[in-house]
Amino acid sequence: MGNSAIGRSLRRVDGEEKVTGRAQFAADLEMRGLLHGRILLSPHAHARLRRVPKAAALACPGVVAVLTAEDLPPGDAVPAQRGRALLARGEVRFAGEPVALVVAESEAAAQDGLDRLAAACEYEPLPALVDPEDAEDPAAPPVQPHLSGRSAEAQLHAALATAEEPEEPGPSNVASRVRFVRGDVERGLRDAAVVVSRRFHTSIVHQAYIEPHATIAEYDPARRRVTLWTSTQGLFYVREHVAAVLGLPESSVRVVPMTVGGGFGAKILLLEPLAAAAARALRRPVRIVLTRADEFRTGTPAPRSTIEVTMGARRDGTLTALRARLLFDAGALPGAPVNIAALLLSGAYRIPHLDVRGREVLTHKPPIGAYRAPGAPQATFAVESIVDELSRALDLDPIEFRLRNVCQGGDPMPTGEPWPRIGLREALLALREDPLARRVGAASARGGRDTTLEGVGVAVGGWLGGLEPASACVRLNTDGTVQILVGSVDISGTATGLAQIAAEAMGMPVDRVQIAGVDSDSAPAAGMSGGSKITYTVGAAVQRAAEDARRQLLAIAASRLEAAQADLEIVDGKVQVRGAPVRAVAVSELARLTSGFGAGWPPVFGVASDAITQRAPAFGAHAARVRVDRESGHVQVCEYAVAQDVGRAINPAAVRAQIHGGVAQGIGWALLERMEFDEAGTLVTGSFLDYAVPRPRDVPPIRVTLVEVPSERGPYGAKGVGEPPVVPVAAAVASGIAAASGARPTQLPMTPEVVLRALAQRGG
Amino acid sequence: MGNSAIGRSLRRVDGEEKVTGRAQFAADLEMRGLLHGRILLSPHAHARLRRVPKAAALACPGVVAVLTAEDLPPGDAVPAQRGRALLARGEVRFAGEPVALVVAESEAAAQDGLDRLAAACEYEPLPALVDPEDAEDPAAPPVQPHLSGRSAEAQLHAALATAEEPEEPGPSNVASRVRFVRGDVERGLRDAAVVVSRRFHTSIVHQAYIEPHATIAEYDPARRRVTLWTSTQGLFYVREHVAAVLGLPESSVRVVPMTVGGGFGAKILLLEPLAAAAARALRRPVRIVLTRADEFRTGTPAPRSTIEVTMGARRDGTLTALRARLLFDAGALPGAPVNIAALLLSGAYRIPHLDVRGREVLTHKPPIGAYRAPGAPQATFAVESIVDELSRALDLDPIEFRLRNVCQGGDPMPTGEPWPRIGLREALLALREDPLARRVGAASARGGRDTTLEGVGVAVGGWLGGLEPASACVRLNTDGTVQILVGSVDISGTATGLAQIAAEAMGMPVDRVQIAGVDSDSAPAAGMSGGSKITYTVGAAVQRAAEDARRQLLAIAASRLEAAQADLEIVDGKVQVRGAPVRAVAVSELARLTSGFGAGWPPVFGVASDAITQRAPAFGAHAARVRVDRESGHVQVCEYAVAQDVGRAINPAAVRAQIHGGVAQGIGWALLERMEFDEAGTLVTGSFLDYAVPRPRDVPPIRVTLVEVPSERGPYGAKGVGEPPVVPVAAAVASGIAAASGARPTQLPMTPEVVLRALAQRGG
Repeated sequence: MGNSAIGRSLRRVDGEEKVTGRAQFAADLEMRGLLHGRILLSPHAHARLRRVPKAAALACPGVVAVLTAEDLPPGDAVPAQRGRALLARGEVRFAGEPVALVVAESEAAAQDGLDRLAAACEYEPLPALVDPEDAEDPAAPPVQPHLSGRSAEAQLHAALATAEEPEEPGPSNVASRVRFVRGDVERGLRDAAVVVSRRFHTSIVHQAYIEPHATIAEYDPARRRVTLWTSTQGLFYVREHVAAVLGLPESSVRVVPMTVGGGFGAKILLLEPLAAAAARALRRPVRIVLTRADEFRTGTPAPRSTIEVTMGARRDGTLTALRARLLFDAGALPGAPVNIAALLLSGAYRIPHLDVRGREVLTHKPPIGAYRAPGAPQATFAVESIVDELSRALDLDPIEFRLRNVCQGGDPMPTGEPWPRIGLREALLALREDPLARRVGAASARGGRDTTLEGVGVAVGGWLGGLEPASACVRLNTDGTVQILVGSVDISGTATGLAQIAAEAMGMPVDRVQIAGVDSDSAPAAGMSGGSKITYTVGAAVQRAAEDARRQLLAIAASRLEAAQADLEIVDGKVQVRGAPVRAVAVSELARLTSGFGAGWPPVFGVASDAITQRAPAFGAHAARVRVDRESGHVQVCEYAVAQDVGRAINPAAVRAQIHGGVAQGIGWALLERMEFDEAGTLVTGSFLDYAVPRPRDVPPIRVTLVEVPSERGPYGAKGVGEPPVVPVAAAVASGIAAASGARPTQLPMTPEVVLRALAQRGG
Repeated sequence: MGNSAIGRSLRRVDGEEKVTGRAQFAADLEMRGLLHGRILLSPHAHARLRRVPKAAALACPGVVAVLTAEDLPPGDAVPAQRGRALLARGEVRFAGEPVALVVAESEAAAQDGLDRLAAACEYEPLPALVDPEDAEDPAAPPVQPHLSGRSAEAQLHAALATAEEPEEPGPSNVASRVRFVRGDVERGLRDAAVVVSRRFHTSIVHQAYIEPHATIAEYDPARRRVTLWTSTQGLFYVREHVAAVLGLPESSVRVVPMTVGGGFGAKILLLEPLAAAAARALRRPVRIVLTRADEFRTGTPAPRSTIEVTMGARRDGTLTALRARLLFDAGALPGAPVNIAALLLSGAYRIPHLDVRGREVLTHKPPIGAYRAPGAPQATFAVESIVDELSRALDLDPIEFRLRNVCQGGDPMPTGEPWPRIGLREALLALREDPLARRVGAASARGGRDTTLEGVGVAVGGWLGGLEPASACVRLNTDGTVQILVGSVDISGTATGLAQIAAEAMGMPVDRVQIAGVDSDSAPAAGMSGGSKITYTVGAAVQRAAEDARRQLLAIAASRLEAAQADLEIVDGKVQVRGAPVRAVAVSELARLTSGFGAGWPPVFGVASDAITQRAPAFGAHAARVRVDRESGHVQVCEYAVAQDVGRAINPAAVRAQIHGGVAQGIGWALLERMEFDEAGTLVTGSFLDYAVPRPRDVPPIRVTLVEVPSERGPYGAKGVGEPPVVPVAAAVASGIAAASGARPTQLPMTPEVVLRALAQRGG
């Protein structure tokens, strides 16, 4: 396999168009008769909608229409997710909730109309439940009185079988509950030599993609069809929900996925139903592009959480018990990832006794959405901080302590099911070989006037890996080039990897293989690009489809070469008889036999449809060397090491890039990012001036070791790699701070203020 | 099968958007940075190109570039077909040959530049070979001195195995030859009691589509990819040839087929390579839309022909011999359909002795192209006129005479191969039941001052039916609707029929089935929409793909219903256990099991790839009642009857519409249409003022009888239906004239002048 297409760091197929600025984003499109929509967002977290005086906006030159809920399909009483909500009906439940759509001939006219409408709109403010602890109180008025059933968003990134706690009777702001119990946690805690307990807080974090949400919708009254050009991670997902909201069959909605300028879970479904409904109502194409301020106000960020963890271990370092309580603030609609958070919090280690309870609570804040490994950074920050404290308390090396306790394949998950083969232990072993490992836990302080403390922290974490059925086609063109058809959106380099998989399975050079652009009319089915599942699920379908195409090609060759199919091989663009390479025929020549008037061979068209039901969870072990300024509280991450089990690195450069990106975003969680709301529930960090994301100087050199514990079902053993690297970062940095200073920050982001407070409490 | 989707006259899926003007044509598209191209056409039929002074055009405001052959890929020495020719290099070989492309910011600026360039361009006129008989002379200078090999266009509509005559040595204007010999034609003629001999002439006929050729090309330098939005009958055909001309892999060319506003064979490949080359050269999208005058000057019309036929029959009406010589004028490039013409001329009847020779000759006229049943109207006009004359000479009923001689399945074709099962005899028998049949051959003249003669003529004719490999996909959406994916363009209602086929094969209501829009990136392979082969070949693939999808769906249902797959049926959108309809599950519910995080069933994605190699020739029998004004020579077709074997009418209304359209165009051939060139080879009929197409008053009521002699491989027995109906019209009208007047016109179109001449020669 010297020429294997697998394991090669090929340049990304979408690289050049992106770096040269030629990639087409939804907002780049021009269209005849295009209208521009701006959304009026509620300034109140909770209010009765008194009057939306359309005339105020319609008086502006260029304003074509003002749409309110009454002009659109009724929709769900309580939308199963934020993306299915159109416009507020009677009441607004968060500051930033869409109230009306001003549609105009130009963006500027729409803005004028919006300003006038905003000034004229009348609300009756109502008390807002902003704090989730208040909202959890059974006596609190319900944010969604008509809520029933479970949320869809919760299922998005990692559908799980969980033991749900029974619902309490009566309306409540607790939208979902989860509980995992094993053994007798009280007994487990009694068995422990050391018990550590902490309460952790994390903040609302925005996905901070560069490209804002952008959607164009067009309605064809003759065919009664909607076409959407949109920045989405999931074309079929958009299709399904737009069709449902508009009451159309799915085949009457066409979704053309445009280049996604950063998604991270937030570009799944947001503006599409509204744009489609508006285009249908107005019979003209409607474009909606959010401003940055809108993104902060009406986007779907990652939820804040409060997590209490108590954990015990024996003197020898064996974990005995874990008790945890998770509270996730879902905002105004259900969907917080408390299930997966609870599972990951309690799943990485062998713990004989555990009791983990999670709740998701509604408040008058923006409904939260998916953000890279939803729920995992929060849970992992909590549990890995505790594990680190335990190792410190037991004076054990944090890596050795973890190696003693980590789960392996066959160990039970909190759900009771066994883990499949996982590479958590292997990742820790690999991290132990990194130069940083020798310095783990070692604190150092510079002398003299230097106020800097330095330490190395470690954490592990991972992701279950998503599953979703997928089809794929591999087609041989008549000139012998190969095209792959899939229904997945490439947000992370997956297209390049899929081309490598197809090339390998077909035996063709990878530069002859191309992945075709698609839309929902023509693409084979695939899940959205979320949950780290595209390479794992779509890649497996591509592999099988390419093998199918290869068989079809060899059948033609066998006939031409008068040889048995089993004796043939594909080498350098030719099919030849093994051991007799003079008996050969070019693939392009075979391809030509399948096309043209009267051609005698069917087109080579390999297909596979698959529903993998076996997960491939992927874990990584991280080490962060951090410097803490004990006077300012500023923390700098100086050096970073990751060892991550990726199953098989189809394209190592692309995998490393995912890890780099994940760590960078993790540093944002750890040190910088927080959406803040005032007591009235109004966002006070509504721009990049107030909301800090990592800049280059915040991100250190990152050393990556790829660990390959192959999955059973993934293509060539590959696993999802996108989500795991963000998961342990905050915990690793926190433990680095603890190693440097002895202080344990328990709140994200670990701003100077938080760190100074922790330093002040040190030893307290 | 009371609910069968087959045999129902459903409304065409593309109907509403066409009648409401919402269908998108290529010329409707807007695009950022779009440039407009106008082509400078040679005014000379043959000239040396002296100077193309670009500066003349570039001086016009808004003109961006002038491209000549030197600016474009070198291309073929002699293009294998007109569509692959870009711009003239050194010499022009027909009046209307593209010389330069003027590209400007607007259509008006391009026109200004074109006018200036045309005035400044310098040619050295050379002698032009305009008459094919002159060109055939071995001493004539060759129109294409570098010609070698066979043309591609000749193979397009009906690839045939033929006995080619050996090439004569040395350069020649005879671009191809065909000969069919059976028995001893001299002996056959000696055996005859009656021998009739005539020489027929047909004219150059334009396809006269309403929409002009229109193409937009865009080049993406980052991906090195061309995208074309174009009015084409064959997306993959365009892709293949644009890729070849530009030296790109096929996967680097994307063809988006736009609504075709009339194709009839002429919208296959014409402007696309030029537009693509220009877009690549200029790095901006380039649009080329022909004017009507350009269409006449540089389009690819149907060839003129001269056909001599001698035929003999015994007294009892048995045919004994056929001798024929066909001369087709290909214009400046090879590609005239002389093979198929020779075959159809000599194929419909059992004739023991035949000798048919065909030649295709190059002249300095526009290269001809495909037009609905290429070669067949010409050949059929000749042979059916002769057959009619024989029946008149023998005083036999023309229908009975034909019934005595027509071929049936198993009889040899002129190639020696046996005819598959054909319905020619059945069509004649059906026509015999038509009220017009009773009046066949009956002449009537009104008395008094009325100068009108009336008669009924009969002719038969057909088409071999094209073959080309095709794939198809049938996909179940997650809401239970069905989408079909095919790579064929719908120019005649095929999409509606394919939906019916899929519905029938899957067992779903047809309103749940939709055919998706596609492009060459995403569509399964299919041949172009030409040769009457889409329903036959793509329809067969759709049928099999739908059967495949049905099996996959039933597998899920079997598991859900705990029943054997064989016991299940699909009724009214539900899968149920046969005989126990309470055990049922909705298709939409099954579909949902194939989608979403962790779903357990693969997407239902039926696929088929096929290469049918068995033709399904389709014949019709026509009768025309015509009135001839013996003073003016004007001919009016008053009533028309068609009995056509269609195998199986998937959508009878759509089939009848094809027959109506074919007859209307046949009336154009018969009476009206002729492109005329002067002695210098310049077109003198360059507008619809000079070129007459049938108007409503020229087309009589048409009575259609659908005969169903099922094909073996077509879906539900269907055969191609689009081309046969144009074939016998001119012959039927001519025989009607003969029946009315005793005069036999031997030239198309049978203008008043031609008819008067025939009347004058009557009895001569």
